[in-house]
Amino acid sequence: MTDSALAPPAAGSVHRVFNFSAGPAAIPEPVLQRVQGELLDWRGSGMSVMEMSHRGTDFMAIQAKAEADFRALLGIPAHYKVLFLQGGGIGENAIVPLNLLGARRRADYVNTGHWSTRSIAEARRYCDVHVAASAEATGFDRVPAQSEWQLSPDGAYVHVCTNETIGGVEYPWTPHAVDRPIVADASSHILSRPLDVEAYGVVYAGAQKNIGPAGLTLVVVHEDLLGRARAECPSPFNYTVQAANNSMINTPPTFAIYVAGLVFEWLQAQGGVAAIERANIDKAALLYGEIDRTGFWRNPVRAEDRSRMNVPFFAPTPDLDTLFLEGAKARGLAQLKGHRVVGGMRASIYNAMPRAGVEALVGWMREFETTHG
Amino acid sequence: MTDSALAPPAAGSVHRVFNFSAGPAAIPEPVLQRVQGELLDWRGSGMSVMEMSHRGTDFMAIQAKAEADFRALLGIPAHYKVLFLQGGGIGENAIVPLNLLGARRRADYVNTGHWSTRSIAEARRYCDVHVAASAEATGFDRVPAQSEWQLSPDGAYVHVCTNETIGGVEYPWTPHAVDRPIVADASSHILSRPLDVEAYGVVYAGAQKNIGPAGLTLVVVHEDLLGRARAECPSPFNYTVQAANNSMINTPPTFAIYVAGLVFEWLQAQGGVAAIERANIDKAALLYGEIDRTGFWRNPVRAEDRSRMNVPFFAPTPDLDTLFLEGAKARGLAQLKGHRVVGGMRASIYNAMPRAGVEALVGWMREFETTHG
Repeated sequence: MTDSALAPPAAGSVHRVFNFSAGPAAIPEPVLQRVQGELLDWRGSGMSVMEMSHRGTDFMAIQAKAEADFRALLGIPAHYKVLFLQGGGIGENAIVPLNLLGARRRADYVNTGHWSTRSIAEARRYCDVHVAASAEATGFDRVPAQSEWQLSPDGAYVHVCTNETIGGVEYPWTPHAVDRPIVADASSHILSRPLDVEAYGVVYAGAQKNIGPAGLTLVVVHEDLLGRARAECPSPFNYTVQAANNSMINTPPTFAIYVAGLVFEWLQAQGGVAAIERANIDKAALLYGEIDRTGFWRNPVRAEDRSRMNVPFFAPTPDLDTLFLEGAKARGLAQLKGHRVVGGMRASIYNAMPRAGVEALVGWMREFETTHG
Repeated sequence: MTDSALAPPAAGSVHRVFNFSAGPAAIPEPVLQRVQGELLDWRGSGMSVMEMSHRGTDFMAIQAKAEADFRALLGIPAHYKVLFLQGGGIGENAIVPLNLLGARRRADYVNTGHWSTRSIAEARRYCDVHVAASAEATGFDRVPAQSEWQLSPDGAYVHVCTNETIGGVEYPWTPHAVDRPIVADASSHILSRPLDVEAYGVVYAGAQKNIGPAGLTLVVVHEDLLGRARAECPSPFNYTVQAANNSMINTPPTFAIYVAGLVFEWLQAQGGVAAIERANIDKAALLYGEIDRTGFWRNPVRAEDRSRMNVPFFAPTPDLDTLFLEGAKARGLAQLKGHRVVGGMRASIYNAMPRAGVEALVGWMREFETTHG
């Protein structure tokens, strides 16, 4: 390839689909436009953000503003640290026990589906896992009530996955305090609704759903939980070390942090988390309303625990699923295929999905049902 | 901020500096232009690469091509795995012992400066570290000859840092085989010169110098070294698990992989690694020639071990360093400040630095010396 083959496409050729990917997921278009405009020259600096030293004043300001905006959006109190890490939610499945177990040998987990199960499997490398509650018996169709939790006597923490990206199950309630810290994997619904941070000891989220590009993990940790990391915890994943070093004990994923910061600015421009929650409730009601309208489509989750972010649904047969997906793609409704472990369809309708995208999806569902129902 | 505040700057306002950052570092401008052009719509897909599912056909093809091009550039044999991980070089300082120690309790390290020292400190969490050779006594001004290595009887591997980014020391030779695998931290000079992969059991590199954006780590590992990871190694950092899962046991840093792939294409267009090495030799000769011309400037490294990539240098006094840096900035010579632990100046002249940038730097050095020499 020559240099000229690296030239950008001609202006005006841009087209955009409605992107229902579960993650990496759609980014708000104004954010992408801003990234595009600044790509070779960030605000007169003469360089791309991805070319900046992480310790230079420009990037330090970008990261500081991203953190401040994230704190403001979720109302994160000063006694919680915000860390910009790597490794995603699956990395945190190991990093959480490495940081929180201390001398204890047990932790409690609530099992609400695929991601909880993954978290449990990874935690078992480090401790005894006590499953405090599980919805497995009913096919993970619900969130077990907190009154069902049976905590071990000596667990270091309780881990919950507050939105199951594959199963489409979301906690509609915030846990009340128990005798140990509650850790939330909020990867796939963070910033989609208000968060009562003080209910949790740790909240973590891979960025690639509602925050920004893959490769960035946000961790919110109560400062009382620092200082407990095991010796075998790698330094870049040690909350205490990273909190003391402004998340720069290693080079942070600078470009992803920059994009996340722009997403936070966009979210503020939408009116913040309370406003985006109203939009998300509206979008979810539209889609679930169509799913439930006649009984042609099926979503297995109990009504009150249905996720506003990830909506799995199925046509009456797998062949019809395939046909629906082909037609969706042809209509610019992208990445609707269900996760490989469950099949069917999954519409992820994160903050960046406009109502028009859900309307287009519902339109195609209605048309499809008319033909095949 | 409103949506309109997120609009890109007007066309024609782009300006670019010569960027001497040690990392995150300059990206070839044709790559940035391509990223910019494709940012909202990758080749008619209707979405940005950062919005694509990592398991979709488009992204899978992007990653496969990046791997194939990287393999071709360095001539990586089929019995080596290439992994796309996270956590950077500092992450690898823990990940290497977690993967390679197996049942052994000791590893050997060669100490050539700041980054070797960091690697040693991190490895001490996991094993006894035997320092097989060190240049500390001479102020890290050289690479100890391999004949000086005194290996422990039972070390699981030998770790070397083949280019010290801060000290500006680079191995001019390839180690010959010893009775255990040699592990190379090649973060800051990978792809700047040919690499004899078969001399090493593992080669790793943080991307943010010669590969692409921060947040991506490339690991090249001999397949015979798989299967040794300790139980406490987190799954996303377990070479065996990642090798078996196409580096997708967690969501990989997709956008960084895409940019890295474009850098690989750009490098091929330059004629590959042999051609870029000639350009790097030429650039380094120009800069060291100026440093040595009169004795005004100082670089402490022994001539044959001087890094072609990272060139620390000092004016006669710290005040003159400061004055030089101010003038450099005004002339569009950016991020030349030396690392905070050593001061002075550091010019990182990676693959993406054009000869014109080094010429401009040398021009300013000459002018400065005329005034202050």
